[in-house]
Amino acid sequence: MPELRRDPVIGRWVIISSERGKRPSDFATEQEESGGQSCPFCEGNEHMTPPEVHTVPAEGSDGREPNAPGWQVRVVPNKYPALRIEGEIDRHGLGMFDMMNGIGAHEVIIETPRHDRRLHQLPVKKVEQVVGSYRQRIVDLTRDPRFRYILVFKNEGRAAGASLSHSHSQLIATPIVPKRVSEELEGAKIYYGWKERCVFCDIIKQEMEQKERIVCENEEFISLEPFAPRFPFETWILPKKHRPLFERDNDLGLLAEILSETLRRLSLTLSDPPYNYLIHNTPTNGRGTDLLAYHWHIELMPKLTKVAGFEWGTGFYINPTKPEDAARYLREAELTEIGD
Amino acid sequence: MPELRRDPVIGRWVIISSERGKRPSDFATEQEESGGQSCPFCEGNEHMTPPEVHTVPAEGSDGREPNAPGWQVRVVPNKYPALRIEGEIDRHGLGMFDMMNGIGAHEVIIETPRHDRRLHQLPVKKVEQVVGSYRQRIVDLTRDPRFRYILVFKNEGRAAGASLSHSHSQLIATPIVPKRVSEELEGAKIYYGWKERCVFCDIIKQEMEQKERIVCENEEFISLEPFAPRFPFETWILPKKHRPLFERDNDLGLLAEILSETLRRLSLTLSDPPYNYLIHNTPTNGRGTDLLAYHWHIELMPKLTKVAGFEWGTGFYINPTKPEDAARYLREAELTEIGD
Repeated sequence: MPELRRDPVIGRWVIISSERGKRPSDFATEQEESGGQSCPFCEGNEHMTPPEVHTVPAEGSDGREPNAPGWQVRVVPNKYPALRIEGEIDRHGLGMFDMMNGIGAHEVIIETPRHDRRLHQLPVKKVEQVVGSYRQRIVDLTRDPRFRYILVFKNEGRAAGASLSHSHSQLIATPIVPKRVSEELEGAKIYYGWKERCVFCDIIKQEMEQKERIVCENEEFISLEPFAPRFPFETWILPKKHRPLFERDNDLGLLAEILSETLRRLSLTLSDPPYNYLIHNTPTNGRGTDLLAYHWHIELMPKLTKVAGFEWGTGFYINPTKPEDAARYLREAELTEIGD
Repeated sequence: MPELRRDPVIGRWVIISSERGKRPSDFATEQEESGGQSCPFCEGNEHMTPPEVHTVPAEGSDGREPNAPGWQVRVVPNKYPALRIEGEIDRHGLGMFDMMNGIGAHEVIIETPRHDRRLHQLPVKKVEQVVGSYRQRIVDLTRDPRFRYILVFKNEGRAAGASLSHSHSQLIATPIVPKRVSEELEGAKIYYGWKERCVFCDIIKQEMEQKERIVCENEEFISLEPFAPRFPFETWILPKKHRPLFERDNDLGLLAEILSETLRRLSLTLSDPPYNYLIHNTPTNGRGTDLLAYHWHIELMPKLTKVAGFEWGTGFYINPTKPEDAARYLREAELTEIGD
């Protein structure tokens, strides 16, 4: 059983995932894998994963059996979960230290049956099925009262932490609201308390006036370089109207369109960089001011620089690229059509 | 001039170091370097760095000219500084955003004249000269009233962010107290306010009773795996007695001894891993409760895993190795003598 442990100085929780139990020699060698028979996410290898919890059937495969070929998107529990779904939450102390058992959910969203397609190479219609699957899983897991937060994220490329190369996203539901999220929520609530406006709505307004950091936009969404980015080419995607919840009131077709366009611009400008993205959403028990103050968004970070001692020691980032320059490079990328 | 910019939601500052001004194609290729004529840190190449600000002369080189051979440790300003030493601090707004000019100091501590020696391969006496140079630079820069914090850190190995392989540490003085440090200081003060005891002193006491997470110790210092480590084999070194300031009341010979021993244990157990370490010290204007509540320490993190979307999204780490197991592996490493 994984454990959650809390740092007694700053209150940061960590997951000690001892079932993955790495020994010193395990860190030296990273195994490569190359699809085909060995890839558990490829169509035809459905038996290699735990049973699916959600699928989008492929066109013309409506009568498909579960855990068989004929799908476009497939969601399965992670075979090596960071947190376990079974059990009750048990919080306890160990002298001055605090811990709890590692209850949560850890799922994998397999974005395509094809091993040789990246997310940015899929038609927008298929990207819409991916973000629709995110929504379906968030709605379902929000019903579990043990969970306080659900994070959807994607690691693309080995340098960005992906251990399998077949294109996929992940979702982790946690029994506590993570530190980074509560910091954002608190910051947004302080701003709201002072101004009675959403800080993200104000950012969007100023960005649309200045026009210096916008990457692209459509009727419902805007993609921009934030004013104070941690990383070169860090990009955020936000709904233009005030929307606290990812799973409610969003046009998923337009979301798929801007996500796909942003990924294609990054891919073209930076030659297919490894990247991470994550969806910051209101916590599952968000009420009242939370919903007025918080605004869901995607944070997308190409992995171009290394985080080093200064960043670890200060929580302060050195970024060698101005966001105004990054936005200009991304706007100038000449996109081509996507095949099928 | 570099800029400091503040994120309007969570108040995180970033340094936009536009003089390093990276274009998209600069990220694709990382230049290799291999010492000898081209390495600015090698003895004989002193003209390749800005003029030195501190040196420890080599044995028998007491009458040495500045910026010439004959040194054991040499401290120089960084040629490509993240922050600039010249000027007054100018804070201003840009609509809803906040920024200031990038005033600070950025220095390099060259730990040895030899290109082929790593810090853990140096005799303890020479490691003492390195930590003595840290102290000298902290004492000197603390006199500059523009600086609120001075971070000493080391990036060892390319994967840990070192851009030059010649063994060196760095120091950055900043005009604000960084977020990670003020979080620790606040946490320690809340604990002190409640218990009238230093949280780090209490941690050391519990660890010395439990004995499960200790790596090694001597009369003045202890090296241990923290209870809630972010990374596998994350190791902290702390003075056993309550010491708020790195630059005061510490036996540098014993510090060099435990730092060297800890690095050699990590090197042996994990086959010379890349790593980062950093010294967390009380801010330069620390007074009153700060000095009662805070306890300086070194945080050392071998670079074995990749930080990915989940960590970026939550500030929550997944660690596959129990600290109790890591401490046992490190204790069991069979150290050999160091040559000269």
